[in-house]
Amino acid sequence: MSVISLDRTSKKSLTRQLYEQMQQRILSGVLTEGYKLLSTRAMANELGVSRNVVLEAYDQLTAEGYIESRTGSGTFVAAGAVYAAKESVSLKEVKTIGFKSFNPNIIDFRSGVPDLSQFPVNQWIRITRDVYQEATPAQLAYGSPEGRAELREAIAEYVRVHRGVRCHTEQVLVTAGTTQAIGLVSRIMLHSTNKNVMLEDPITSDIRYIIEGFGGVIHPVGVDENGLKTKDLRKLPKPLFIYVTPSHQFPLGITMPIQRRVDLLNFVSKTNTYLVEDDYDSEFRYDAMPVNSIQGLDPKRVIYLGTFSKTLCPSIRVGYIILPEELIERGRRLKWFADLHNATMDQLVLARFIKKGYFARHVAKMKKIQKRKREVLIRSMEKHFGDKVSILGSATGLHLTARFPGVRFNSELLQELEEKGVKVYPVEEHAIRAGFYEDTIIIGYGMLDPGRIEKGVEILASVLQLN
Amino acid sequence: MSVISLDRTSKKSLTRQLYEQMQQRILSGVLTEGYKLLSTRAMANELGVSRNVVLEAYDQLTAEGYIESRTGSGTFVAAGAVYAAKESVSLKEVKTIGFKSFNPNIIDFRSGVPDLSQFPVNQWIRITRDVYQEATPAQLAYGSPEGRAELREAIAEYVRVHRGVRCHTEQVLVTAGTTQAIGLVSRIMLHSTNKNVMLEDPITSDIRYIIEGFGGVIHPVGVDENGLKTKDLRKLPKPLFIYVTPSHQFPLGITMPIQRRVDLLNFVSKTNTYLVEDDYDSEFRYDAMPVNSIQGLDPKRVIYLGTFSKTLCPSIRVGYIILPEELIERGRRLKWFADLHNATMDQLVLARFIKKGYFARHVAKMKKIQKRKREVLIRSMEKHFGDKVSILGSATGLHLTARFPGVRFNSELLQELEEKGVKVYPVEEHAIRAGFYEDTIIIGYGMLDPGRIEKGVEILASVLQLN
Repeated sequence: MSVISLDRTSKKSLTRQLYEQMQQRILSGVLTEGYKLLSTRAMANELGVSRNVVLEAYDQLTAEGYIESRTGSGTFVAAGAVYAAKESVSLKEVKTIGFKSFNPNIIDFRSGVPDLSQFPVNQWIRITRDVYQEATPAQLAYGSPEGRAELREAIAEYVRVHRGVRCHTEQVLVTAGTTQAIGLVSRIMLHSTNKNVMLEDPITSDIRYIIEGFGGVIHPVGVDENGLKTKDLRKLPKPLFIYVTPSHQFPLGITMPIQRRVDLLNFVSKTNTYLVEDDYDSEFRYDAMPVNSIQGLDPKRVIYLGTFSKTLCPSIRVGYIILPEELIERGRRLKWFADLHNATMDQLVLARFIKKGYFARHVAKMKKIQKRKREVLIRSMEKHFGDKVSILGSATGLHLTARFPGVRFNSELLQELEEKGVKVYPVEEHAIRAGFYEDTIIIGYGMLDPGRIEKGVEILASVLQLN
Repeated sequence: MSVISLDRTSKKSLTRQLYEQMQQRILSGVLTEGYKLLSTRAMANELGVSRNVVLEAYDQLTAEGYIESRTGSGTFVAAGAVYAAKESVSLKEVKTIGFKSFNPNIIDFRSGVPDLSQFPVNQWIRITRDVYQEATPAQLAYGSPEGRAELREAIAEYVRVHRGVRCHTEQVLVTAGTTQAIGLVSRIMLHSTNKNVMLEDPITSDIRYIIEGFGGVIHPVGVDENGLKTKDLRKLPKPLFIYVTPSHQFPLGITMPIQRRVDLLNFVSKTNTYLVEDDYDSEFRYDAMPVNSIQGLDPKRVIYLGTFSKTLCPSIRVGYIILPEELIERGRRLKWFADLHNATMDQLVLARFIKKGYFARHVAKMKKIQKRKREVLIRSMEKHFGDKVSILGSATGLHLTARFPGVRFNSELLQELEEKGVKVYPVEEHAIRAGFYEDTIIIGYGMLDPGRIEKGVEILASVLQLN
């Protein structure tokens, strides 16, 4: 037993070290069944530690079954405690999944991220402090899957006033962003035997993986200058639900006009199905007010998805679903079994941030900032490319798409661009059916300042050499 | 058109009100295709608003396709914009799902919730302030599914030192609590054709619903005084994974001794399957150090689940999975498609809270507080019930179970208890196979102060009348 060595500088207590070393010896069979241990007094002397350390370690080993004391005769190693502990993991490199980190040396026209240097840090800190100082034990305990009433009321009022959504507070389900919302909607719907889900093509590639992950069968539906081609729906099997981004089609940027909306809703009514309206960045409509939601036209048939990722910041992971009444209970139940509910304090802080009017002011401020970036971007594009480019979807949001007829944005070209210091994103990456958008790229301008935007377009022009 | 009425006290802008009212008239067919609108100037006069208000509303309606201007002849209602907007939802009452709120007039022996009046508010606020003041745009953007490196390092060190877990930082996957962790583990595993999942019986009822929700086929395995009856595993089909709570069986409270652990691991090895170790409250072991994890004995075969709900607070919704290497990438991918990642700032605050040593001190403090509550509870039980009760699982955690031979905790008895002012929870609610635990209740003591605990036991005694 003298090979036990205790390290007084370790984070582990002496008791824990002694316990683990004895445990190791028993598990590995160095100390075998029936072996008589030193008395606690003798062991303490041997190791130069207080007797309490040994007593506690012996108690622990006894409680866990490694050793047993027999009255009057001492303490012995118990039977059945031998297990050759398996090797730990020798870790190979793990592939990165999800969002790639930014390379500060590259002008990155990534879409979907707002200008985060504008995040209202001080207001947020003040509210957070107040919310925590007022926190009750009940708020710190488990909550309800639908989310805090304070936040749901703020969201319901916001979407009623600004998005033309018609809803009650009880229809709001707070989610961990739109990603979770899409998963929940899939699970709400996909208990049906019908698994057909109609998606705009192109569309954010994550969306189809999420829906497929829950058993959905994806049917791509093309997009023309008015959005999803409703005519094509009639050639496909009966849908379970149809997923659209009518305010600002992602990635193409189209705003669906009322005629197409009416056609879509008539189809949805007639086939007795649901429309999922993903309204991810419509707050940023630069030359007019945001277009009203489709939800407002038929609240029983439309499942509306909103997010704070584009208006506030993605890191907060808060979004929401406005559910038709008959889906509310199923939605709450699935949210409960997904993660119980969103973190409570974050919800309370956000609710107060909205209620105090800070959110509306922040959106207005961001709209101005983004508008200026958009103007710089469009001016630069016109200057460098003239009629060699057609720009789509610039009325709204944090990105536009640029079509360069005759150009193919294949991996060689993208790599050359990156080597020259600029990163753009091909629409083709989001296409379900390949080959229709090889000449078109997504240009996000949320995170770049005007100087970098100009410089980026200049590099793009020097590589493409269209003039 | 004179029926349009604008409300200057509304939260909606005059432009938005005008736009929505005209939109309504067109959608409903009051204004029909080809109807010629007043000029913007005339409309402004009619309504007594600035011409800009009307111009903006007309622009918006034009952009969305409701109206169209024909050069030289005026502005007209467009074709195809009629849609009889459907009635909104007239909401019936929605059933509450999830955690029932506390009734302050009842002594509620609910389990699984720590004493939240002890939450370290001031430390938390200070760290939150620092983290937000130092926040970079990259931190506020989208992150990685596995979670922030700072937090994963803190968790890896914590479980290595305190739980005998053997792992690298890369094996840590930050989750939105154990609920999400169970869902992710189910989805990681259930792509197999084998759907057999072995659960301890009884076990928290949510667990089986989550696993079944992802297609698992549940096989209950009984629990004796040493935990899961490994012998019974051999009578069942080959498992996909086995789910256990070895540090503190929920609800019964048993700590699994080493012999049973060895037997279980031998079975897992031989059948080439996985063990899921749910280690939800082992930090609170009162008379000894926490029992080491099973994971440390075989890191390649054990998926370890931990949570901050019991040590810090449930409202924060943070837990973690320690994944064997071969499951890391699949785990990250599924977390990405579940909700991208946990909220970033919360992760950074928690990481710093652990790193500064506040977490370890908080756990030590809570252990003292809970220990005193436990003593009061056990003393009261002995005083009122003597040998009419047997107490199980009091060595660890935030609850114990009490068996009253001959008593049946059916709904009548539970209701009588509640009317007298005390709420206890039958083990039977968590039993997969009914009828074995009708005489046993769960008594949680995390949230109650000693006086309330004594009073609660007194009421329980007066109702049961066993002496």
